[in-house]
Amino acid sequence: MTLIADLTDLLGPAHVLTGGDCARLAQDWTGAYHGAPLAVARPASTDEVAACLRLAARHGVPVVPVSGNTGLVGGTYTEGGLLVSLERMNRIRALNPQTRTATVEAGVILSTLHDAAAEQGLYFPLWFGARGSAMIGGVLSTNAGGSNVLRYGSTRGLCLGLEVVLADGRVLNLMSALHKDNSGYALRDLFIGAEGTLGIITAAVMKLVPAPRAHATATLALRDLRAAPVLLNRLQEASGGLVEAFEFMPASYTRRLAEVRPDLGQPFDDIPEVTILAELAATAPLFCTPRADGTVPLTEVLETTVAALMEEGLIVDAIVAQSEAQRRAMWARREAAAEITFAKRPFVDTDIAVPLDRAADFLEAIHARLAAVPQAHEPLTVAHLGDGNLHFTVFPVDGSKAEYDRVITLIEDVVAGLGGSFSAEHGVGLSKRASMARRKDAVALDVMRALKAALDPAGRMNPGKVLPGHGGAAS
Amino acid sequence: MTLIADLTDLLGPAHVLTGGDCARLAQDWTGAYHGAPLAVARPASTDEVAACLRLAARHGVPVVPVSGNTGLVGGTYTEGGLLVSLERMNRIRALNPQTRTATVEAGVILSTLHDAAAEQGLYFPLWFGARGSAMIGGVLSTNAGGSNVLRYGSTRGLCLGLEVVLADGRVLNLMSALHKDNSGYALRDLFIGAEGTLGIITAAVMKLVPAPRAHATATLALRDLRAAPVLLNRLQEASGGLVEAFEFMPASYTRRLAEVRPDLGQPFDDIPEVTILAELAATAPLFCTPRADGTVPLTEVLETTVAALMEEGLIVDAIVAQSEAQRRAMWARREAAAEITFAKRPFVDTDIAVPLDRAADFLEAIHARLAAVPQAHEPLTVAHLGDGNLHFTVFPVDGSKAEYDRVITLIEDVVAGLGGSFSAEHGVGLSKRASMARRKDAVALDVMRALKAALDPAGRMNPGKVLPGHGGAAS
Repeated sequence: MTLIADLTDLLGPAHVLTGGDCARLAQDWTGAYHGAPLAVARPASTDEVAACLRLAARHGVPVVPVSGNTGLVGGTYTEGGLLVSLERMNRIRALNPQTRTATVEAGVILSTLHDAAAEQGLYFPLWFGARGSAMIGGVLSTNAGGSNVLRYGSTRGLCLGLEVVLADGRVLNLMSALHKDNSGYALRDLFIGAEGTLGIITAAVMKLVPAPRAHATATLALRDLRAAPVLLNRLQEASGGLVEAFEFMPASYTRRLAEVRPDLGQPFDDIPEVTILAELAATAPLFCTPRADGTVPLTEVLETTVAALMEEGLIVDAIVAQSEAQRRAMWARREAAAEITFAKRPFVDTDIAVPLDRAADFLEAIHARLAAVPQAHEPLTVAHLGDGNLHFTVFPVDGSKAEYDRVITLIEDVVAGLGGSFSAEHGVGLSKRASMARRKDAVALDVMRALKAALDPAGRMNPGKVLPGHGGAAS
Repeated sequence: MTLIADLTDLLGPAHVLTGGDCARLAQDWTGAYHGAPLAVARPASTDEVAACLRLAARHGVPVVPVSGNTGLVGGTYTEGGLLVSLERMNRIRALNPQTRTATVEAGVILSTLHDAAAEQGLYFPLWFGARGSAMIGGVLSTNAGGSNVLRYGSTRGLCLGLEVVLADGRVLNLMSALHKDNSGYALRDLFIGAEGTLGIITAAVMKLVPAPRAHATATLALRDLRAAPVLLNRLQEASGGLVEAFEFMPASYTRRLAEVRPDLGQPFDDIPEVTILAELAATAPLFCTPRADGTVPLTEVLETTVAALMEEGLIVDAIVAQSEAQRRAMWARREAAAEITFAKRPFVDTDIAVPLDRAADFLEAIHARLAAVPQAHEPLTVAHLGDGNLHFTVFPVDGSKAEYDRVITLIEDVVAGLGGSFSAEHGVGLSKRASMARRKDAVALDVMRALKAALDPAGRMNPGKVLPGHGGAAS
């Protein structure tokens, strides 16, 4: 029997896709990776995932998990491997408002969890543009970030319990809802962010937080980028740490936005060099309850801080959202980032992190270094600045591999010099595997290879991803 | 040459202790573990730690790290192994107020970091009784918890960067200060909490937070323990998540306190069944700035919430601290826990975690089950209730191993039935190794053994700790 025949016996013909039926999952939405999986298996339970993995092991076929397929790093690309889609494991098993936890399967769409939490006055604080398609399994596998990390942490920090199917089909049950658990090594954290190279995540217990009752949101034009850390610290001081998002859009971004999405409008008459989208969110009545005159204290905190910094010359123009519609419009301009970035080709996109006080240093240094590179368009930056996380994209004239390597090396040199990382929140996948080889501490790479060999000795779990030198695909 | 001679060449005779000079570190402060190390090495730098480990590898001698020696689980016990003391690696290498990070060596005492942070208006939010002796290396190795985990997370959540010396003396450099870094597996989290069984932590980059400008602290007598989660959620709602500590002391604790430490006083005329120490902490001016009449809004939030719950009958008596001296007195009664617990012998102490809504279920069930066990004193509980973390201690009449096993099995049965953990914040060490064998998911144990074998194939790093079946000491 072939693997496909065995899988069909297990799952039924409707849930084993081959040929053209795989197309939807065989390629990623950026269009950069076009794979050719042997088949797509669609198990509906943890037991079925385990059975799929035992069958794949018996046939010696590589296994690649896929959920929402919104990744940006080629993490689900495969030639000849079995794609295991988690999309049918889409149940919210439990949602406990008293303990503020949700037990969810890997195929639950992020916005579905947002909606379920909202019904209980709660919030699942992982928020990014692809939330309507991205699924829990994928966000856990990549340790996804987004706009709220500043306040609530990355996915790893939001997970209490985890269920994982290992390469040999055994089920690792770490599904507790505990806030302290020192019973051995941090296995949960190890599988989160491993991008399916150590096992397949099938379910998790996630933390929820009280839903904000008030937001205060502003689009701010700053004198320069060095004013940004000052603004962030002042907002945190004034609000007691209520900054929920602190996003940076330079003139390059705003100009491109005007070109690609003129319908989204421009907040200021002139395009500022530095635009910051800052948002505070509160649940305490002291911040949220409107006063007799209708003013909301949280908004007043934002307005007062902004006014003081305008007085000091650090902020040069400001709009504070006066309605939910205005707030949504501000966010729409930020969330068009992927659409804007990938509208021009060829591009060299990055997802870098630097210490919180080094973003301006990075941009100054990299613009100087890139002056020697012929570019079709000016570099484009959009950043979760409050986390030191910049998405910096270059558009070289020459789309060759050699030019890509030249540009990425320049960028990585600057990042490394600032104590930064070439990989912040999107994951490594295929696209940053060469960077791992070039930039990651050699001892760390050795340790990772040892862990991979210990948990997946046959090298069949998402081969060729994350770690350099594990075969499976060109890096 | 012997290992001791080689170490003496490396470090000088003043920093290689043998015989009676080892006594201070050979036994733990609870008096439960009396070891006999081959020697104590006191390296002063990461390079010296690495050289010590290469020498130990060459001589085939086991290595056990020790820093403040305040552990409770026998984690630093050794017969014949080399104790590597980190006490001379006691530098705060850097403290950056703008990015709120501190780069510290493993031998920095926790309270030293508290003081250094306070000088910059910042706070290192790891707080427990032994803070004047415990060192960063130990709190990282055990993923220590304490009273502020509810607000700021455990040690793992406070660490950005890590430096580790591996079994073969190679140095793993993960010393970044980044808030997002998805460059491969979560190695930092793996070494944190591994209790020295995978390598020796020599330095770390830790997060700091703004120092609270106002505290509001109360000692509250509750109608019963089931009122506690209601109180916690009401305080969180009223303050917007500013609860920094939520500690539980039942009548058994308060009675023992009166007996052992009468100097610390009693807050109420009668001893309540359920006493809660609750503390809010704020940095925002809206909460901290006194009004014209002298009232502090944060205190008012606490008082208003307490008054409402008294009206509803959930709180039966309450004292809100009116001065820092009163606040300190409240904390002194809580921080006498270790002294009180270990004053009577024999004891069976535990460090369990249950889901946030199951503490009352645990105590009801365990008291019923323990009625059959002859006890010299009533069981003693003290709890970080806001984390679901209970320190529950039984005082059996019979100090035998068989009786210990009977009691611990009863407790673990109840904990397991509630989805809890036998190990919350103290670590596993020697004392919970048998519990690991009995209670941890079998697949999880297999995975941990595979990781241990991958990183320490000779089994020389703190052998006999954490994992069952790794030899080195009786469990």
